[in-house]
Amino acid sequence: MSNRKNGQWILKTRPVGMVKESDFDYVETPVAELLADNEVLIRNLYFAFEPAMRGWLNDVKSYLPPVQIGDVMRAGTVGQVIESNNPDFTVGDYVSGTMGWQEYVIIDGKPGMTGAVNKVPEGVPPYLMLSALGTTGLTAYFGMLDLGKPGVGDVVVVSGAAGATGSVAGQIAKIKGAAKVVGIAGGEAKCKWLTEELGFDIAIDYKSENVKDELSKHCPNGIDIFFDNVGGEILDAALINMANNGRIVLCGGISAYNETELPPGPSNYMQLVIRRCTMAGFIVLDYLDQAPKAYSDILGWIADGSLKHAEDIQEGIENTPKTFLRLFEGKNRGKQLLKIAEPPIA
Amino acid sequence: MSNRKNGQWILKTRPVGMVKESDFDYVETPVAELLADNEVLIRNLYFAFEPAMRGWLNDVKSYLPPVQIGDVMRAGTVGQVIESNNPDFTVGDYVSGTMGWQEYVIIDGKPGMTGAVNKVPEGVPPYLMLSALGTTGLTAYFGMLDLGKPGVGDVVVVSGAAGATGSVAGQIAKIKGAAKVVGIAGGEAKCKWLTEELGFDIAIDYKSENVKDELSKHCPNGIDIFFDNVGGEILDAALINMANNGRIVLCGGISAYNETELPPGPSNYMQLVIRRCTMAGFIVLDYLDQAPKAYSDILGWIADGSLKHAEDIQEGIENTPKTFLRLFEGKNRGKQLLKIAEPPIA
Repeated sequence: MSNRKNGQWILKTRPVGMVKESDFDYVETPVAELLADNEVLIRNLYFAFEPAMRGWLNDVKSYLPPVQIGDVMRAGTVGQVIESNNPDFTVGDYVSGTMGWQEYVIIDGKPGMTGAVNKVPEGVPPYLMLSALGTTGLTAYFGMLDLGKPGVGDVVVVSGAAGATGSVAGQIAKIKGAAKVVGIAGGEAKCKWLTEELGFDIAIDYKSENVKDELSKHCPNGIDIFFDNVGGEILDAALINMANNGRIVLCGGISAYNETELPPGPSNYMQLVIRRCTMAGFIVLDYLDQAPKAYSDILGWIADGSLKHAEDIQEGIENTPKTFLRLFEGKNRGKQLLKIAEPPIA
Repeated sequence: MSNRKNGQWILKTRPVGMVKESDFDYVETPVAELLADNEVLIRNLYFAFEPAMRGWLNDVKSYLPPVQIGDVMRAGTVGQVIESNNPDFTVGDYVSGTMGWQEYVIIDGKPGMTGAVNKVPEGVPPYLMLSALGTTGLTAYFGMLDLGKPGVGDVVVVSGAAGATGSVAGQIAKIKGAAKVVGIAGGEAKCKWLTEELGFDIAIDYKSENVKDELSKHCPNGIDIFFDNVGGEILDAALINMANNGRIVLCGGISAYNETELPPGPSNYMQLVIRRCTMAGFIVLDYLDQAPKAYSDILGWIADGSLKHAEDIQEGIENTPKTFLRLFEGKNRGKQLLKIAEPPIA
């Protein structure tokens, strides 16, 4: 075994308000010289970035414990097995898991998403495990199908539609027969991409258009499903435009993730009563036992051309915090990834 | 037919902010001398009052059209048939319906809740059709059972618990096996009544106690069902105390009904995501085809002593607007009613 150094990004300070590059620190630690029984040494190749990671930096009780100061930042990654003392893993295997912002990780080979790893299926590009087949893709899949329940003729609106989850959620609604899928995104380029590349029927640019008025114009009979990644004024604009018996799928609320004080909630929430609507939250971790079915559906849709996946791939481990910030600057189109190495094993 | 005058309370001006007695006007109009075929003349005996009626005074699109200036105020009432040209109705029959704030009403005898009337079943006190068997009782029944889905062991919290809907909703949860039912109400007398008379396990006085802290103390493992009639800070206090997979039944939001500007929504709404909760609204009008089953259950529970109904009965048609205001002054315990006459037919 070589005398490897493990480059790691750790949480230095808890961000107050907008997360900053300086909230993280780059350190190097030695990689263990010898693997114990069942241990596997993995070289990370790609890091995945998600808005929800901002929440893990706050010292509050949530669906996952907060990342502690000094800890390697928690993140989904894919890597390649470079040494193995485990009969289930062969050198050269690609694996995905929550392996964090670091170059190397040693795992004990137990299955599961948190802390351990899954093998990347044969023929699947490894980074796809972080985008359409990753947490954000599965979030879109289970949120849209299990809570949104799209049916033929439904009018579906997705906020954060150019993001990794929103872009997949809107396409799944279309695949399931939605009559109209409207995406809300920031900027002309993203909007054009939604309608010209991904098959959205309408795109609303929240930076230059009045979302409430545009929704009212494009959804004159109301919104059957609103898949929300943003919160704030956009959620309020959707609430006032819901159809009777509509479903609001609460996926995220990126507009508030970097606020120091919790902003006010949706003033129009009583529309849920008047229009007999349901607003429901979910966490994708609860659905992981159904992931094989999701993988199979998503791979099928990619193969037949009905689902397009998109990745925004930056490069270089030195750019890790900067790449994370792209999410909150609205820079990414599709899944935000960072490539930190070429596969060492050919 | 006598030369009857019909005393009526009409909407004079649309209230701005808190509704006032002077927003209504008392007028007298003649009652038609002759009934046409199928018509029935009814003498109203009781008016029912509900917070939702405040919403009908605003000139906005909602689940029912707004009451127009000059119209008799829409309200549930019970009355007695005093003349009938309809084979289905006999003089002396008691009927309930949305007959408005007036002494007399002529209906054409078609069935249905809005505009027409239902006969009060034999042996049922007529005013019960406005309380436990009225809109508020049915709202409690369908909201708690269809949306709340209480089960054995559930921890249930009801706001506006001393009101007509809240008091019934909490008792139904208990009947269905809830492990703990917590009521939130204003003032010591109401709180005592909830625990000593209605079988609530805990009562929180929002006027003298910190609701968030009390909920956290009494529901250490979280709230499975929150049945909300109030909104505002109380909804926020419940959101931060929900259990995983909890249900919020949005029934009303009385805290905002008299506000000129729509107040901010619940800041803590993203707890719905973290705790995988559902918040759903409903309108009881959608459930009226299932009312017979509800009547039968509620009458059974009253008969076996498991459900207590309560009415706050004021008297005199001259006190109509004043009695309406009692709802927003927090004065009523149970269903707010106004008795305007003794039954003319013995």
